[in-house]
Amino acid sequence: MQMVEPHPAAATDRAPVDFDAWAAACAQRIRDLIGRHVPAGEGASPVLSDAMHYAAALGGKRMRPMLVWAVGDCVDGDASALDAAACAVELVHAYSLVHDDLPCMDNDVLRRGLPTTHVKFGEAMALLAGDALQTRAFEVVACDQAIAPALRARLCALLAVASGAQGMAGGQAIDLTATGRVLSEEALTDMHRRKTGALLAASVRMGLACAPALAPDCAAACARALDVYADAIGLAFQVVDDVLDASVDSATLGKTAGKDARQNKATFVTTMGLDAARGLAQRLAIEAENALETLPRLQRERAGYLSELARRIVARGH
Amino acid sequence: MQMVEPHPAAATDRAPVDFDAWAAACAQRIRDLIGRHVPAGEGASPVLSDAMHYAAALGGKRMRPMLVWAVGDCVDGDASALDAAACAVELVHAYSLVHDDLPCMDNDVLRRGLPTTHVKFGEAMALLAGDALQTRAFEVVACDQAIAPALRARLCALLAVASGAQGMAGGQAIDLTATGRVLSEEALTDMHRRKTGALLAASVRMGLACAPALAPDCAAACARALDVYADAIGLAFQVVDDVLDASVDSATLGKTAGKDARQNKATFVTTMGLDAARGLAQRLAIEAENALETLPRLQRERAGYLSELARRIVARGH
Repeated sequence: MQMVEPHPAAATDRAPVDFDAWAAACAQRIRDLIGRHVPAGEGASPVLSDAMHYAAALGGKRMRPMLVWAVGDCVDGDASALDAAACAVELVHAYSLVHDDLPCMDNDVLRRGLPTTHVKFGEAMALLAGDALQTRAFEVVACDQAIAPALRARLCALLAVASGAQGMAGGQAIDLTATGRVLSEEALTDMHRRKTGALLAASVRMGLACAPALAPDCAAACARALDVYADAIGLAFQVVDDVLDASVDSATLGKTAGKDARQNKATFVTTMGLDAARGLAQRLAIEAENALETLPRLQRERAGYLSELARRIVARGH
Repeated sequence: MQMVEPHPAAATDRAPVDFDAWAAACAQRIRDLIGRHVPAGEGASPVLSDAMHYAAALGGKRMRPMLVWAVGDCVDGDASALDAAACAVELVHAYSLVHDDLPCMDNDVLRRGLPTTHVKFGEAMALLAGDALQTRAFEVVACDQAIAPALRARLCALLAVASGAQGMAGGQAIDLTATGRVLSEEALTDMHRRKTGALLAASVRMGLACAPALAPDCAAACARALDVYADAIGLAFQVVDDVLDASVDSATLGKTAGKDARQNKATFVTTMGLDAARGLAQRLAIEAENALETLPRLQRERAGYLSELARRIVARGH
């Protein structure tokens, strides 16, 4: 990979942001949305609702909703649509974790420091909870009367393409068949662009779609810049995950550490070594920042949360 | 349940139909749509595509797409939208069967006379194939540029509500927690209204939604009649399933027979006995036919496929 220098004009015209206050507000907002759209103990099967709520409410970094809202802030998107999009991407993420932890997949018993959904509710109920969380994600977007119908369809389309066989599920399938095999950095990158990158990129694109009134030229310029940004942070996120899995203990991580090596999985650490992986993550953060500098001026000035998100994805310790 | 008499005017003004030719055309059309939307051996993970295609292409009665097209014929719906809706409901049905057959659920090795998806592709790949089939269902509807955006959103909404925690997945969760318990006929009916009825009803509603140009009065009258029709045939379908499971061998059924009894599941046969269950199915078929008689005149004349579908759901031997 070639060297990437910070853009000379980086952040010169950007409005300052209080990232920690904003992140706390995002965390509260996604809790509220999950409480509304995935309440515990209600509906046709209270146990199913409990399992869905448990899986969705567990916490985590809420990276995907934060991306939706950060882009929404940047492009002045519609608040109702942004909320629905943020909730939907988080529910798809939550469903993927529930299924990923199942015995036939990673067989993991610990997630975010707590028992995984199938440990708490049994395998069959966890399977259904994952299924129904995916459905609920589309429902949240498709049924929201506060969102213009065409935007609802567009958000469903972005979510579906990113999470299906060409995106997240496809990446997981590649991962499954690649276990125990040596992967090139290129093949590894392709797998992760799908497995984790696609949904992160969809978060960015859904955020942008929530501003349908942007002039076409401006929207196209934003899409170009934000796609590069999303691609870089998506990959950076996975590289850092691999670095952390190889170098941090389970208690700090809140999930089982060292499992990539035990499962004989190809990771950026096994493929290029720990130091080179750390260096790659740093370069990707700079790439993301540089991409934000290519936004149209008005949006560039409001990209403070996006810039800080990229920085923290690489600096995180868990 | 009270006695239900055939409507005196039944079928007097209905145009005759060649049901068998139409059913064969439907079967070919859904094969074509699955070949287009869920091709084998392509995409990010050819194995995943193979598993998805296997699960979707296996065959079966194609009841849900037939319902979409039968309603579409009745209300003169948009052909592109009807195709997308028909494909989407079938993919949701296919995903639910893949997950339902998994070892942690019904642990079934035979489906439509062939090995179930996890037997052929392994549990992990079958799990992912089910997940990605659900996603593809929404993608087929949400991404189809030939459908008006508002209709795409409406179809996604109908599909999501019917297949999620309040519908199909909710019914499956109730089924899971009810195994080994005695259920009242009322509780059993509620479970099946969700587990199988909701998606059959959604097929009917999606078909109706594909005719957005219907006058509001006419559309409302159609919705009332078709909801009653869908509810009756949805329940009839399940009652007949229970009757067949208790009285027909595996070879005829194309799946493992007698498993309800072995799994100690509450069914209409265990709750009310075989003869009473057969009688209930007959009464529900008459209810469905009577509901079609309450359609506005123009639609009533074109309800031939719907009428014959109801008759065959009850008369089927597998």
